[in-house]
Amino acid sequence: MLFNSVGIIGVGLIGGSIALSLKNKKLAKSIVGFDINEDNLNRALELGIIDKKCDIDCISKCDVVVVSTPVSTISEYIVEILKLNRDARVLDVGSVKKPIVDCVLKKLGNDVNYIPMHPIAGTENFGPEAAFNGLFERAFCIITPYDGMSEGLLEFGKSFAQNLGMVVKTMTPELHDEVFGYVSHLPHVIAYTLVHLVSRKPNEFSFVGGGFRDYTRVAASSEIMWSDIFLMNKGNVLKAIDEYMENLKNFKGIIEKEDKDSLVEYLKQARVFKRKLDG
Amino acid sequence: MLFNSVGIIGVGLIGGSIALSLKNKKLAKSIVGFDINEDNLNRALELGIIDKKCDIDCISKCDVVVVSTPVSTISEYIVEILKLNRDARVLDVGSVKKPIVDCVLKKLGNDVNYIPMHPIAGTENFGPEAAFNGLFERAFCIITPYDGMSEGLLEFGKSFAQNLGMVVKTMTPELHDEVFGYVSHLPHVIAYTLVHLVSRKPNEFSFVGGGFRDYTRVAASSEIMWSDIFLMNKGNVLKAIDEYMENLKNFKGIIEKEDKDSLVEYLKQARVFKRKLDG
Repeated sequence: MLFNSVGIIGVGLIGGSIALSLKNKKLAKSIVGFDINEDNLNRALELGIIDKKCDIDCISKCDVVVVSTPVSTISEYIVEILKLNRDARVLDVGSVKKPIVDCVLKKLGNDVNYIPMHPIAGTENFGPEAAFNGLFERAFCIITPYDGMSEGLLEFGKSFAQNLGMVVKTMTPELHDEVFGYVSHLPHVIAYTLVHLVSRKPNEFSFVGGGFRDYTRVAASSEIMWSDIFLMNKGNVLKAIDEYMENLKNFKGIIEKEDKDSLVEYLKQARVFKRKLDG
Repeated sequence: MLFNSVGIIGVGLIGGSIALSLKNKKLAKSIVGFDINEDNLNRALELGIIDKKCDIDCISKCDVVVVSTPVSTISEYIVEILKLNRDARVLDVGSVKKPIVDCVLKKLGNDVNYIPMHPIAGTENFGPEAAFNGLFERAFCIITPYDGMSEGLLEFGKSFAQNLGMVVKTMTPELHDEVFGYVSHLPHVIAYTLVHLVSRKPNEFSFVGGGFRDYTRVAASSEIMWSDIFLMNKGNVLKAIDEYMENLKNFKGIIEKEDKDSLVEYLKQARVFKRKLDG
């Protein structure tokens, strides 16, 4: 798999890291970039992430276009590119899938060169400086096929992700958004809440151990990216928060009753599941 | 500072790591150990963590005794040792301080060779195998002086912790338990709850990114240790859970109202505080 040209719309952590990985693996002859933030675009050029700055018209001429902007803006870019060049293969890497897929299909129909993807990779840092080669090695990549998506297009998406070092799994856009509401968006809600709680306490509360640092790592993420995700996956996020609060009340009840046996059993079950999850 | 003999009661992650650090820094001629779990005690001997197995009577003859058992059993050991030998210097490393301090002082009075400590170090692993030299390097160690504690004893506690590589801070036992209710015990409650929530979901929910893994790392901790901590610091833990739930409801409200400006601001405040906290 070798592309003449790959276009990256949004040259931040994910888009930039895709560009660097493609370069490192010599998968693209040329990588061009666009970003509404001109400073970021210039920085990406300086850092050698992209070979050339481009406008949308020029990006649309690429073989492959990666849309890696905040989720609320993704579908517009996809539609714009595919209207300019329906032969381009356009993929997005947004953390929310169903609203984007629905919007693209509603505007362009199902016979469209669009591959919805979500690489399960990232750090709490953002912008072109945060991008690095190797971010995707051994990470999962979820592809969410839609009704009418051709086998060829799905296979192309899988190869693209595998070429970046990822392990591909597929699920429907609906299930994706529900799952990641629980395993990603909810943990972010939790981390943000915890940081806020502690931020309003006196200085003595700044003695934080490794546990606290870990739980709240993601609270240092981009507010532009995450406000979009919370709002775009609102239904699933609210459902996950409600269910989480019910669970928290239940746990609180066990402590309140000083029911030691139930408490030990509850903590043990969590430990066993967690160790299994980590393999 | 060189001790003839140090006794470790509870040769797990913390007690074992103290022993290994003392050995590595050549701070003790001999280290003896006791554990109600005979297998753990034998393992600690095999691993070279302790030089000799000991009963409580023999441990009480040491210059320094470290009590590093689950918090509900700590005060009994302290009282037992100091009754056998009031010249021994006894320190504990429990994550809860006020109930232990209160219990010891009630039984032995304030003129007692007891130093309440809490090293802010650890991992989710436990038992003698989890112990390692270096765990305490550059970690904070909270010492919680009580009314009537002599300057000399406090200075001894500070040197002991500093010799292990730690940075010492002091606060009252009351404040300690409140602070760690928020910054340590609450995050553990949160992690356990999250793991339980996801454990009851179908397999598709096991695609977890770095956020979730970090977030739930501590849910793999010892249920014996943590059930004790939650129950012994019950008042502060319940208060922290309640306040946390109020904050979560507030955050949920912002998402529900789709108030983008407030949401961005809320996330940004958390990011700024978190980056400051991490220095």
